[in-house]
Amino acid sequence: MALVAGRQAFGVQRTSWLWRSRWAPLSTGFCSPGSATAQPESEPRPTSTQQHDGIRNIVLSNPKKRNALSLAMLKSLRSDILHEAESKDLKVIIIAAEGPVFSSGHDLKELTDAQGRDYHTEVFQTCSEVMMLIRNHPVPIIAMVNGLATAAGCQLVASCDIAVASDKSSFATPGVNVGLFCSTPAVALGRAVPRKVALEMLLTGEPISAQEAVRHGLISKVVPEEQLEEETMRIAKKIASLSRPVVALGKATFYKQLPQDLRTAYYLASQAMVDNLALHDGQEGIEAFIQKRKPTWSH
Amino acid sequence: MALVAGRQAFGVQRTSWLWRSRWAPLSTGFCSPGSATAQPESEPRPTSTQQHDGIRNIVLSNPKKRNALSLAMLKSLRSDILHEAESKDLKVIIIAAEGPVFSSGHDLKELTDAQGRDYHTEVFQTCSEVMMLIRNHPVPIIAMVNGLATAAGCQLVASCDIAVASDKSSFATPGVNVGLFCSTPAVALGRAVPRKVALEMLLTGEPISAQEAVRHGLISKVVPEEQLEEETMRIAKKIASLSRPVVALGKATFYKQLPQDLRTAYYLASQAMVDNLALHDGQEGIEAFIQKRKPTWSH
Amino acid sequence: MALVAGRQAFGVQRTSWLWRSRWAPLSTGFCSPGSATAQPESEPRPTSTQQHDGIRNIVLSNPKKRNALSLAMLKSLRSDILHEAESKDLKVIIIAAEGPVFSSGHDLKELTDAQGRDYHTEVFQTCSEVMMLIRNHPVPIIAMVNGLATAAGCQLVASCDIAVASDKSSFATPGVNVGLFCSTPAVALGRAVPRKVALEMLLTGEPISAQEAVRHGLISKVVPEEQLEEETMRIAKKIASLSRPVVALGKATFYKQLPQDLRTAYYLASQAMVDNLALHDGQEGIEAFIQKRKPTWSH
Repeated sequence: MALVAGRQAFGVQRTSWLWRSRWAPLSTGFCSPGSATAQPESEPRPTSTQQHDGIRNIVLSNPKKRNALSLAMLKSLRSDILHEAESKDLKVIIIAAEGPVFSSGHDLKELTDAQGRDYHTEVFQTCSEVMMLIRNHPVPIIAMVNGLATAAGCQLVASCDIAVASDKSSFATPGVNVGLFCSTPAVALGRAVPRKVALEMLLTGEPISAQEAVRHGLISKVVPEEQLEEETMRIAKKIASLSRPVVALGKATFYKQLPQDLRTAYYLASQAMVDNLALHDGQEGIEAFIQKRKPTWSH
Repeated sequence: MALVAGRQAFGVQRTSWLWRSRWAPLSTGFCSPGSATAQPESEPRPTSTQQHDGIRNIVLSNPKKRNALSLAMLKSLRSDILHEAESKDLKVIIIAAEGPVFSSGHDLKELTDAQGRDYHTEVFQTCSEVMMLIRNHPVPIIAMVNGLATAAGCQLVASCDIAVASDKSSFATPGVNVGLFCSTPAVALGRAVPRKVALEMLLTGEPISAQEAVRHGLISKVVPEEQLEEETMRIAKKIASLSRPVVALGKATFYKQLPQDLRTAYYLASQAMVDNLALHDGQEGIEAFIQKRKPTWSH
Repeated sequence: MALVAGRQAFGVQRTSWLWRSRWAPLSTGFCSPGSATAQPESEPRPTSTQQHDGIRNIVLSNPKKRNALSLAMLKSLRSDILHEAESKDLKVIIIAAEGPVFSSGHDLKELTDAQGRDYHTEVFQTCSEVMMLIRNHPVPIIAMVNGLATAAGCQLVASCDIAVASDKSSFATPGVNVGLFCSTPAVALGRAVPRKVALEMLLTGEPISAQEAVRHGLISKVVPEEQLEEETMRIAKKIASLSRPVVALGKATFYKQLPQDLRTAYYLASQAMVDNLALHDGQEGIEAFIQKRKPTWSH
């Protein structure tokens, strides 16, 4: 059975555009706050990225290390997410992974006494930053999971706006087994699933299946492995066909209003609706609907 | 297959008391903040209402326009909900709809540039007011859904205290397709279902089935279409048989404590329990229980 | 069919150590804030407790009164939970019950006018205190439910960190039937399940099955009755095998970050991760993992 979802992903004809290449095609105008401390150029980037028709595909590409979210991996992921985030050509991001493990979470070798407290702090700060970046990003970010996602890997899935997983995937926060409670993964997990589900995962370290994950809201959808890429691409293409500024306003407003009291939430959201209608694409969409034609977005 | 649930609803013998009539029976003492701007008298009211044995049934009655929540519809709904809200004779409200669409949400023809920003603002403010009114109303409000509920129609279902739907019903927030992200529906949706469920609905615009809706908490119950009225009435009658002030205190306390931290929530709820016991019906209920007799509520 | 799960619980060989005995084995060094007002010595304690291999088992032991959470029961439960809470020998607590009813909630005979407002206040304050104590306790607390849990009994299940129930169990908040809305149970219920699920339970008083309870997150797991003790003990033993200070830090951080905004939550949780790594058991666990050996916790 093919476990290497990454290499197979995206496209009926298995064209190579989304895969096989490194970051180069997107490197112009690169702007990453973490670039100063990035790994030496001799090291291969732990992620690979391609973009086509508004869909950026970021692939965790260190399967030998179970796609551990090392500091280098986190910085690479941050760069890939931040890269030309404001470009009209970017409509949606997919985060996938090479190999049978989506991500095993932090690299424990980076968390020994040898690195020391400051290094540990940087790891968790960078990780938290990546997770918040996903929420604050103007375009929707989809996790495509085909395999095991544990600890900060599970956190990454929980942090995405949408997550599609194959039926062989599973999810766990097993840090407690090695004496490191998954407290940062719990931030994302505890906001995605009911409290008792989160606590059982955190306190026992035991995995849940993709079926359980979808039932409890950790992921959006579970599909047979052979349909994973197709279904993920279907959703991504749908989003890429929409008005980027409308989606960006809607996503930002969703997360902004959610923690507010009801009155404040409705105040914020009502304002967003009026602002949305004032957007060129807002009026274009409604006019097209009334005139029974397809809208043409100007973004 | 009979799609017009409204006309058939309520009552084995299909008596006409709940249907076929306009607002007249309830019009005495009418008090609506929106009455000054209500539609001209020549226009038929877009809702129809009847009340019997403590159960008020409000029916969205503009099936030709898919029960769109036009400003007129929202004001009519607000009036019907507010009408004699403090009367002891009112114990529970049901919101139903005529025709195959429960409600398609806002009337997009009211949201073009022609109406302008102020009108748009009034539409969303009135809509938000209706949704908050449902939460703040002293009696429980039940949505009875038999068909499609989209955008603000989905928001209306999410905002009710209880929602019963037939198995042919479905729910969507498809505004993004016409360039108007469902940001106000997202306020209610995001508080009813897990975050990933809400976001997939909002970002893709795709519908979920009644089965998915009940699994994720958007609705309380799904039943075969032919049992929809029976089951809704069973719940309504149950609530109508209870003490109105006890239910009112409980409903208000529930929404009040929910957003608080745990200590504050328990402080508020403990006070409510003591206050509840000080109510005449509180003591009557407990005495009846101890004496193994049926309680007689004085409301 | 044996309904008395309590007496049968825990242990393939049905040894008597966990059951049959009163509190005596743990009474040395007893420290309860409620001990001054405890029931007279002639009354048997309404709970029984045993502790073995880090697992404390507290059993509600008043099946004749359906394990009602009388003030005496609440104080006994509070004492049993607080007893040597800081001891390294305590790793996890199980709350079980004797008889076919897990707990029927408050003793309504204590809530009549005869007792008066001050007594009522004490009952609800003590109950709230027990529920918050479960959350604030350094070790995980598991409810093992084999039967009906209603009102404050349902609240107790909802308040535990983990809850395992047999498939014959059911859950309800039926106070509204006797004129006493379950407002304090609603604090725990409303934080465990989706809003519409909670409201239907509260407004109709109708029970939900163990299957519905697990689907909506009220309990963690449902198993056949004959596996209830085995599965609960499996989870308890797993937790007892972990590092106590790591689990305590993780549990406290989980509840601390959950109500915060995302940025604050990540700040708190990142700090907790760094602190966790600074614990002796934190480094021991990671070193053991890297060295591919079993960790030895010093707690």
